[in-house]
Amino acid sequence: MSTITQIKTYDFRFPTSTTLSGSDAMNPDPDYSSAYVEISTSADDGIKGVGFVFTIGRGNDVVCKAIESMSQVLIGRNVEELLDNMRIAWDLFVHDSQLRWLGPEKGVEHMAIGAVLSALWDIKAKRAGKPLWLLLSEMEPEELVATLDFRYLTDALTPREAIEILKEGQKGKAERIAHLKEVGYPGYSTAAGWLGYSDEKMVALAKEETEVKGFKQIKLKVGHNIDDDLRRLAKAREAIGPDVRLAVDANQVWDVPTAIAWINRFHDFDLAWVEEPTSPDDVIGHATIARAINPIPVATGEQMQSRILYKQYLQANAFGIMQIDATRVAGPQEIVLEYLMAKKFNKPVCPHAGGVGLCEAVCHFAMFDYVAVSGTMDGRMIEYVDNQHEHFVHPTEIRNGNYVAPLAPGNGTEMTLETAEKYLYKG
Amino acid sequence: MSTITQIKTYDFRFPTSTTLSGSDAMNPDPDYSSAYVEISTSADDGIKGVGFVFTIGRGNDVVCKAIESMSQVLIGRNVEELLDNMRIAWDLFVHDSQLRWLGPEKGVEHMAIGAVLSALWDIKAKRAGKPLWLLLSEMEPEELVATLDFRYLTDALTPREAIEILKEGQKGKAERIAHLKEVGYPGYSTAAGWLGYSDEKMVALAKEETEVKGFKQIKLKVGHNIDDDLRRLAKAREAIGPDVRLAVDANQVWDVPTAIAWINRFHDFDLAWVEEPTSPDDVIGHATIARAINPIPVATGEQMQSRILYKQYLQANAFGIMQIDATRVAGPQEIVLEYLMAKKFNKPVCPHAGGVGLCEAVCHFAMFDYVAVSGTMDGRMIEYVDNQHEHFVHPTEIRNGNYVAPLAPGNGTEMTLETAEKYLYKG
Repeated sequence: MSTITQIKTYDFRFPTSTTLSGSDAMNPDPDYSSAYVEISTSADDGIKGVGFVFTIGRGNDVVCKAIESMSQVLIGRNVEELLDNMRIAWDLFVHDSQLRWLGPEKGVEHMAIGAVLSALWDIKAKRAGKPLWLLLSEMEPEELVATLDFRYLTDALTPREAIEILKEGQKGKAERIAHLKEVGYPGYSTAAGWLGYSDEKMVALAKEETEVKGFKQIKLKVGHNIDDDLRRLAKAREAIGPDVRLAVDANQVWDVPTAIAWINRFHDFDLAWVEEPTSPDDVIGHATIARAINPIPVATGEQMQSRILYKQYLQANAFGIMQIDATRVAGPQEIVLEYLMAKKFNKPVCPHAGGVGLCEAVCHFAMFDYVAVSGTMDGRMIEYVDNQHEHFVHPTEIRNGNYVAPLAPGNGTEMTLETAEKYLYKG
Repeated sequence: MSTITQIKTYDFRFPTSTTLSGSDAMNPDPDYSSAYVEISTSADDGIKGVGFVFTIGRGNDVVCKAIESMSQVLIGRNVEELLDNMRIAWDLFVHDSQLRWLGPEKGVEHMAIGAVLSALWDIKAKRAGKPLWLLLSEMEPEELVATLDFRYLTDALTPREAIEILKEGQKGKAERIAHLKEVGYPGYSTAAGWLGYSDEKMVALAKEETEVKGFKQIKLKVGHNIDDDLRRLAKAREAIGPDVRLAVDANQVWDVPTAIAWINRFHDFDLAWVEEPTSPDDVIGHATIARAINPIPVATGEQMQSRILYKQYLQANAFGIMQIDATRVAGPQEIVLEYLMAKKFNKPVCPHAGGVGLCEAVCHFAMFDYVAVSGTMDGRMIEYVDNQHEHFVHPTEIRNGNYVAPLAPGNGTEMTLETAEKYLYKG
C-alpha cells in the first residue's frame, strides 16, 4: 500500500509571442504556457505522475492555484485504491458538491481536474509499464467503462452501448497495434499557416511540410481579412497541388451570419474543413453554419468545455469533423467518452495539438481510438506543430508525416525540468 | 482625473452547511461564500467600488486569485476614462487574447471578470449618486448599448434592435419608477423548501412565508426521491392553498430521460415551473424536456455561463421561464444583454437569488428591466432567502412579499467588513 505524499505545480511560460508562431485571428500574441503538476507517492518505485493544462499565458497562475487548491484532498490517500477504480478519483473532483458551483464542468476548474486526473493515469500507466494508449486499449471493456461517468449523456450514449462499442473494437486489435507500431498515425501540419507570416514564408513552409516532411494536410489561419485569405489560399493550393488536403481555421472570429458569408467565398479551394467559425459554445450557431456552407465541413472542439457540449454537437449534426483537446476537459476518462460518442454518431475525430505538450498528450487518445474504438484511421489525423518538444523526456517523433507510436510507459507528457525551469514564471 | 490605486479581495465563507439551509439534491452541504473585491481610487470622494462572486465554499480562494491576477492591469488606469466608456473595461478582460483561452467566457475567469466589472459599475453609480437600477434606467439607449458586446449574438439580437427595445422602454418610464419606489418588485420564497428539512418544518415555513410574509410563490427542492417529492408537494400545496404559486427545483440532478419521467408525475400540483431539470449546458436536452413535460414550464439560468447560452435557449425555446444570476456572468453589461434578449424573445425573467449578496445584487437588474426594458412585472419575481443579509450595509428589505426598491447609490452589495471579517477564510 502506498499513499500520495506530495503535489507540486510549475507555472511554465514560453515567450512565443516574440516570433508570431501561434498567431491567428483571435490570438495575436500567445505565450505558450503550461500549468504543470507532478504527483509523488510513498512507493519506492520512484514514479511521479505528471499532468498539465496548456494555456497561452496570462492566467496560467490561476490554473496552478486551482490545481493546488483542489488536490490537497489527495494527500495521504491510498494510491492503489484510486488507480484500481479511477471513477473514485473522478467523483472526488468532478462531483465535489462545492467545487462544481465554479463550473459546473467547465473552465479553469475543469481543466485543473483534467491535469490532476491525467497525472493519476500517468502513475497507473507507468506502474503497468505501458504507454497510456496501450493501457487504455488493453483494459477490458467493462473495466474501462466502469471508470466513465455517463451523467448527462444517457440520452445519447449508455454504458451498455459503450461496452458494445469496445467489444466490437476487440476484433483485429492485435493487428492494429502492430500496424500502429510499424507505421504510426497520420499527422497534419499547421506550421505554414500562422497569420503573422508573409506569403513567401507561408508558401515555403507549405512546400517543406508536405514535400520534405511528408504531411498529407496543411492548415492555414483565416478570418482577419477576406482578400488576404483568398490570396493566401490560392497560393497555398498552388504550392501543395491538388492531392494534399488544405484546411482553414478561423479561431472563433466570426458571428454566425459573417461566418456563412465569408466561408461561402472559399468553395474554390477544395477545403478539408473550416475550423472554429464561431464561439465553441454555440451549438445551434454551428449547426446553422454547417448547413449553410455545405459541402465544406465544419470542424471544432479544441475549446469545447465538456462531454455535454460534444453530445449536443453530435445530436445536432453541428460539425462534420470532431476535434478534441488533451487538456481542456477532465482528463482521459472524459476524452474516452468523447471518442465513444464520436463512434456512436459516426464522426471522424481529428485532435487539436501544438502548443506545449499537446502533441505528446493527444496522440495517445487517437491511437487508443484506432486500436479499440473506431478501428480506422480513415479521414483522421492529428495536428502537428514543431514547438517546445525539446522540453519533453519523450518528445513527439514524426516519420513520413506520421506520429510515431510512443512506447515509453506513461501518458508521454513528462518534462525535462532542468531545461524547462528557466521558463518558470516569476510573476 | 483620478486613477485606480488598490484592488483588494476577501475570501468570506459562512458555515451554512451546519444548518442544512441551502441543501438540495445536488448541493448537500454548501458553505455560502463570497469572493469579494474592493477597488479604491485616488479621488478624494472616498468611494470604493465593490463586487463579488457567490460560491458555495471550496474554490472560493481560486476565484479570489483570479480576481487578483487579472485586475492588476487596472492599477494606475484613468478612472473617468473607464467609467465613461465601460466597453473599454469589458474588452480589457473579456477580450484579453491570452485570458480568453481559460474560457472563453465561462467558469472561474468569467465570474471573476463579473466581480471586477461590477465594482467599476458600483463606482460609476456611487459617483452619480444613484442606485444601479436607476443609473442603468436613466442612461440614453445609445449610451447603454455602446457599452454592450454583441459578439456571437447578432444572429439573435443586433445593436439596432437593442436600441429600439430601449427606446420603446422610455414610454411610461417615470410612472414605473414611481410605482417601483412605492410598491417594490415581487419576490418569491425558497425558505421552506430545502431538502434537508422535515415535512413539519417545510409546512410551517410554507405557511409563514405566504400568510405572514406575503410571498405569492414558494419553491421546493426535489429530485432526491420521487415518493418524498410527491408527499412534500401534496403537503405544500395543501398548506398554501390553490392561489399561491408553487415551483420546484431539481438542481440539475437528472439526465434527460429521467427528468421527463420524473416531472411527468408532477402534473397534479399546478406547478409554476420546474427548475434546472438537468445540466445547464444542455440546450438540446432542455428543449427536449420542455416539449415532453408541457404544460409545466422549464426554468433555468442560475448557472448559465454566458449570453451565448441564453441566446441558444431562446432560439431553441428550451425554457418557459428564464432565470439569471448576478455573479455568474461578466457583470452588468452581460446581464443587460440577457434582459434585452429575453424581451426580444418574449420570455419572462425570474432571477435567482439567496446565497450571500445575490438578493442585494440581482434586484437592480429586475428593476431596470421593469423600468426600461420589458416594462412589466407580469409573471416575473425575484427569488428571496433570508440569509446573510446582516453583513450588508444596505440589506435587502422585503415588504408584503415585495423587494423594496433600493435607493442608496451603488450596486447595493457593499458589506460591513467589521461584522463579516470573522468569516474570513484562514486556509
